[in-house]
Amino acid sequence: MAGKPIKCRAAVAWEAGKPLSIETIEVAPPKSKEVRVKIEATGVCHTDLHMKNGVDPGVTAAKANFPCILGHEGAGVVESVGNEVTKVKPGDHVIPLWLPECGECPTCRRPDSNICSQLSDSQARGVMPDGTTRFSCKGKQIHHFMGTSTFSEYTVLPDIAVVKVNPKAAMTDICLIGCGFTTGYGAAANSAKVKPGSTTAVWGLGGVGLSAIVGCKDSGASRIIGIDLNPDKFEKAKHFGCTECLNPADFDRPIEEVLHEMTGGGVDFTFECIGNVKTMRSAFEASHPVWGVTMIVGVATADDQLVFPPYKLLLGRTLKGSFFGGYKSNVGIPQLVDSYLEGRLPVAELITHTMAFEEINKAFDLMIEGKSIRSVVKFN
Amino acid sequence: MAGKPIKCRAAVAWEAGKPLSIETIEVAPPKSKEVRVKIEATGVCHTDLHMKNGVDPGVTAAKANFPCILGHEGAGVVESVGNEVTKVKPGDHVIPLWLPECGECPTCRRPDSNICSQLSDSQARGVMPDGTTRFSCKGKQIHHFMGTSTFSEYTVLPDIAVVKVNPKAAMTDICLIGCGFTTGYGAAANSAKVKPGSTTAVWGLGGVGLSAIVGCKDSGASRIIGIDLNPDKFEKAKHFGCTECLNPADFDRPIEEVLHEMTGGGVDFTFECIGNVKTMRSAFEASHPVWGVTMIVGVATADDQLVFPPYKLLLGRTLKGSFFGGYKSNVGIPQLVDSYLEGRLPVAELITHTMAFEEINKAFDLMIEGKSIRSVVKFN
Repeated sequence: MAGKPIKCRAAVAWEAGKPLSIETIEVAPPKSKEVRVKIEATGVCHTDLHMKNGVDPGVTAAKANFPCILGHEGAGVVESVGNEVTKVKPGDHVIPLWLPECGECPTCRRPDSNICSQLSDSQARGVMPDGTTRFSCKGKQIHHFMGTSTFSEYTVLPDIAVVKVNPKAAMTDICLIGCGFTTGYGAAANSAKVKPGSTTAVWGLGGVGLSAIVGCKDSGASRIIGIDLNPDKFEKAKHFGCTECLNPADFDRPIEEVLHEMTGGGVDFTFECIGNVKTMRSAFEASHPVWGVTMIVGVATADDQLVFPPYKLLLGRTLKGSFFGGYKSNVGIPQLVDSYLEGRLPVAELITHTMAFEEINKAFDLMIEGKSIRSVVKFN
Repeated sequence: MAGKPIKCRAAVAWEAGKPLSIETIEVAPPKSKEVRVKIEATGVCHTDLHMKNGVDPGVTAAKANFPCILGHEGAGVVESVGNEVTKVKPGDHVIPLWLPECGECPTCRRPDSNICSQLSDSQARGVMPDGTTRFSCKGKQIHHFMGTSTFSEYTVLPDIAVVKVNPKAAMTDICLIGCGFTTGYGAAANSAKVKPGSTTAVWGLGGVGLSAIVGCKDSGASRIIGIDLNPDKFEKAKHFGCTECLNPADFDRPIEEVLHEMTGGGVDFTFECIGNVKTMRSAFEASHPVWGVTMIVGVATADDQLVFPPYKLLLGRTLKGSFFGGYKSNVGIPQLVDSYLEGRLPVAELITHTMAFEEINKAFDLMIEGKSIRSVVKFN
């Protein structure tokens, strides 16, 4: 089908707040420096839910331009490539990159940055870099989303927005390496560089938080304290590596005070994996006043304000953000897939539900009901 | 005079808001693990001014317990030592340490901490570790301040609160290494570890800010942008290493926007050396959104709140505090004195006024009038 349009299934978000609609769409062939990928599996992430509902935190290039095809946590096989594509070839197993890596822009060239600004504009407008879309349905152009649109059986991406991975890896698992797992795991293992023997605490025991726990464990943390208002999540959190779990509702004083007592002065590394300014403040205050490091992983909206007395930084505390685990995509993603193949990353265990693509709206329902950690939908 | 009280001059702060009173006081001999030091020279720092006025930011162990003897930025010679003192001997040149280093407490033992908690309680109460004072005047006990009280010709300190330095160094210069110079210089050269070729910006061109500029220059920064509302300070700032100086009042938009434009996306390292939450926010916003590092050096009060949208951390920014330049006193201070002797640190150039001890109130007047960077008072 190289060079020709493909008809296939996709979940179209026609308008905000409505269930996704399973449609037959047409996917145009890739243009120059573009790649068409057959998606095998895709995770369903909170960002997709927010965008489906038309709720935009307004802080990244993740924007829903309706009608659009959501999805940004996928894995698939290159079906065909446009001109001037050398990075991948048909048949390669790839993970779509909502955070691409062109390797040439000023931010890509910095060793201490994993941000590529090459596609930010087109991503935010829901189009390919040339300003047009490759999706159409019922005579209408359908927008892309985050440059990935993995809720389609076939999708087209700029070549800088895919990375080849080991084909032995199960795509139903490694799709999570395309977003949630990497974001949490890397915040601990890569951005914060948790030291062996450290005490750690993680706020929010969803997919990202559990992945941060894995990152803490892999880094040799001596204590990993999980914090969530839902104690149903504690068993799983302990399975992933938590040494203790706390429900702030069980205490009549702030959880940061409890943590200072538990650790004799403050936690070495704290991770906020929710996106709430109150828990961010807790995570900051719970950290050790001298060497404590707090990583902000959760995404707050543009209007949210973090408020704290700056003297609390005085003795040396660090407050820092981590985006996509701090990994540069081209090197980081294949390495994580290899680690997964060596049995070192419990990615599969994050998946609580697997379902056929047609049932994708159920994945959103499970997420809203708090019943799933991660749902993965399969096209075959 | 070892083992006996010494009568000498001191500037006593009898009550808040009044000028210091030059008195003849009696200084008791050092007890066990204590050291009596003849102070040769002492700088006058903003913290002394705040305390003299009874204004306590409430965030450190620097507290004035009236009547007391202020001063914490001195240099002198050990006159005598109490029992069990092995760290120094009579005749040693020393710098008093308001931030001591016992080497044994949990925070001292961490390689990534320069905080010693051993004396915090006694410092805050204005007494020696045994709960008593060594100063008396007109039949009254006079409190210590920050464990140092360098506004006295003789002072008594715990042995962990002095460090021996090279006797070749001029005490009228190196007294500044006891606080202001080290705080600013180390924030850049030690805490932030400014990388060669980096862009940097420093808010507040007083003694600490100028020292931060020296730290940026020594670290090989390619641009050092000084920011102050008083353009009279720009000439000196350029002499210390600023490549450019900006007055926020000269622009009709926030200075952080100007800095983003000037640097093509944000400053690599920013330093707040004022203690104002508005300039802290500016310094944070002016930093590069991905790899920018903002060091909070200025001390805000316990009631001040820093407010910002946390998504501004999302891509990787770092916000961090630096205290006493991040140096462990026992190693850091003698090394800085040695660097000064090698002619590498322009400590002397920070000193705009030198005066006899009896004129110490003039040093405060000059500070209030904004006419001095640092005043040093000499006992001989």
